[in-house]
Amino acid sequence: MRESRAIGIDIGGTKISIGLVSESAAVEGRLTLPTEPEAGFAEAMQRVVEGIERLLTSAGARADELAGIGIGCAGPVHPGTGTIHNPFTLPGWEGASPVRVLEDAFAVPAYLENDADAALLGEVHAGSARSFEHVVMFTFGTGVGGAALVDRRIYRGTNGEHPEIGHIPVDSSGPECYCGVRGCLESVASGTAVTKAGQALGLADAAEVFERAKEGDPTARSLIERVVVAVAAAFWTALHTFMPEQVVFGGGLMERQFEVFAPALRERARLAERAWGQRFLFSKAELSNEAGMVGAAFRALRPEEVA
Amino acid sequence: MRESRAIGIDIGGTKISIGLVSESAAVEGRLTLPTEPEAGFAEAMQRVVEGIERLLTSAGARADELAGIGIGCAGPVHPGTGTIHNPFTLPGWEGASPVRVLEDAFAVPAYLENDADAALLGEVHAGSARSFEHVVMFTFGTGVGGAALVDRRIYRGTNGEHPEIGHIPVDSSGPECYCGVRGCLESVASGTAVTKAGQALGLADAAEVFERAKEGDPTARSLIERVVVAVAAAFWTALHTFMPEQVVFGGGLMERQFEVFAPALRERARLAERAWGQRFLFSKAELSNEAGMVGAAFRALRPEEVA
Repeated sequence: MRESRAIGIDIGGTKISIGLVSESAAVEGRLTLPTEPEAGFAEAMQRVVEGIERLLTSAGARADELAGIGIGCAGPVHPGTGTIHNPFTLPGWEGASPVRVLEDAFAVPAYLENDADAALLGEVHAGSARSFEHVVMFTFGTGVGGAALVDRRIYRGTNGEHPEIGHIPVDSSGPECYCGVRGCLESVASGTAVTKAGQALGLADAAEVFERAKEGDPTARSLIERVVVAVAAAFWTALHTFMPEQVVFGGGLMERQFEVFAPALRERARLAERAWGQRFLFSKAELSNEAGMVGAAFRALRPEEVA
Repeated sequence: MRESRAIGIDIGGTKISIGLVSESAAVEGRLTLPTEPEAGFAEAMQRVVEGIERLLTSAGARADELAGIGIGCAGPVHPGTGTIHNPFTLPGWEGASPVRVLEDAFAVPAYLENDADAALLGEVHAGSARSFEHVVMFTFGTGVGGAALVDRRIYRGTNGEHPEIGHIPVDSSGPECYCGVRGCLESVASGTAVTKAGQALGLADAAEVFERAKEGDPTARSLIERVVVAVAAAFWTALHTFMPEQVVFGGGLMERQFEVFAPALRERARLAERAWGQRFLFSKAELSNEAGMVGAAFRALRPEEVA
């Protein structure tokens, strides 16, 4: 019997990745499009539909053979209604339903998740969360996302809403965030936040801040130290709320800089083990920038695993 | 048909409350014993067994008519094995099983929960969480406990462990906690923490700090302001991790001082509603110091509602 396959889509503020993914997590085809949110939702979705058609043609596959289409999208999104509500990075798309557009175009089931939940599903099925039942994942990129796996299912709050773990407070004297509070994780430890703090020191971007810190520059070091303390605090919060066995650190910033954070995380894991008498693990994400796309495909391949 | 009844027990570091509780949450009998943890587990349990026998006799009830016995206990505890692991306030009782003792003595099912989970069950069945599916509860007393209700079930982490929400970081420059980190909720906002900070100012205890702050004393006010900011941060963390519809504030400190915290909580709830487009409620616990005992009884009356 042939393996089931699904389309996985990862919609970010600047680009959209689409892949044809098999049950064994093989990506049999992939392409990337610009998001151009300002050109509107309808135009973006037209490009997505054409992209899927191209992928299916190259793979010699037909839409009616697909298990479905999964979409991971920069949140907030409403998984229950399949609609987007993200005025921050997808302005003008509020209330739009990629689920409806894709179900109409391809006559297979479609599913919408926020990008952090999709990335976690990718790590659950093909990465560093494969053998765990209780996991928290953070994704550090332009923003900071977070998701939890509980009893092997994606965690949902009230009304099926996804958590917003990127906005937990970690630094009481940190900068103001757009969410309305001071010093939440995203405002201190996102790529954007590190770049902004670095530019105030005359550095080009987050990469240069990390570079200078490694070279021993004291101002850059103290900036990075503050980011490390914030991430360690977020790790501590994850352990003491969801009580997971594994915490995964993903996103572009962690892909490049995980080793800068690992010693502080190791110390926190040891402290928590001593206090509560159980083992806490953490690791770098394995799928790098394809976690969201692969995970979105698994949303369609394993619809029963999400509440 | 007669209502089902159960025994609910709340074991704290200084006292043990025992009640005979009906399905309609009526407390048909109650008594309180000293814990005296230093006299050992066996002696304490002997007093508990005698206390239950007295309660049953006064109510004209027989043990074999009980739905069971629920125990809420100052954690960490392991609900799965029914054993206590709390070197902090019940030293010397590590590994002891009140479940085994009570099942042997009364031949009915017994259940162990940590005290925060028991208090939440009390509020769920008879208090301020009655009509909600997704709830976080904080209990502010000698320490700070926390528990979550998810899809109307008590939240469990890996291996069935309860969260330790009292130890989420809320004040990056706060005092060192016994858990090993600086500025966790318990180290800033427990009754013990407020008393300790007050004593450093020459005040007798937490009650006097709140009293002086209300009278306008600037030092007491700034201490209380710091506690309020910490509690508001914990509220924000609860909203952004579990995404509950209702957050309940219980424990002795909140029973007396909830109104001091309410304006800051109201502001945070409004901010979160604006950011995520959904409603967040909060309220004072309704059952005051009987929440744990009543909730423990409901653990036995509704065993199917806990994972």
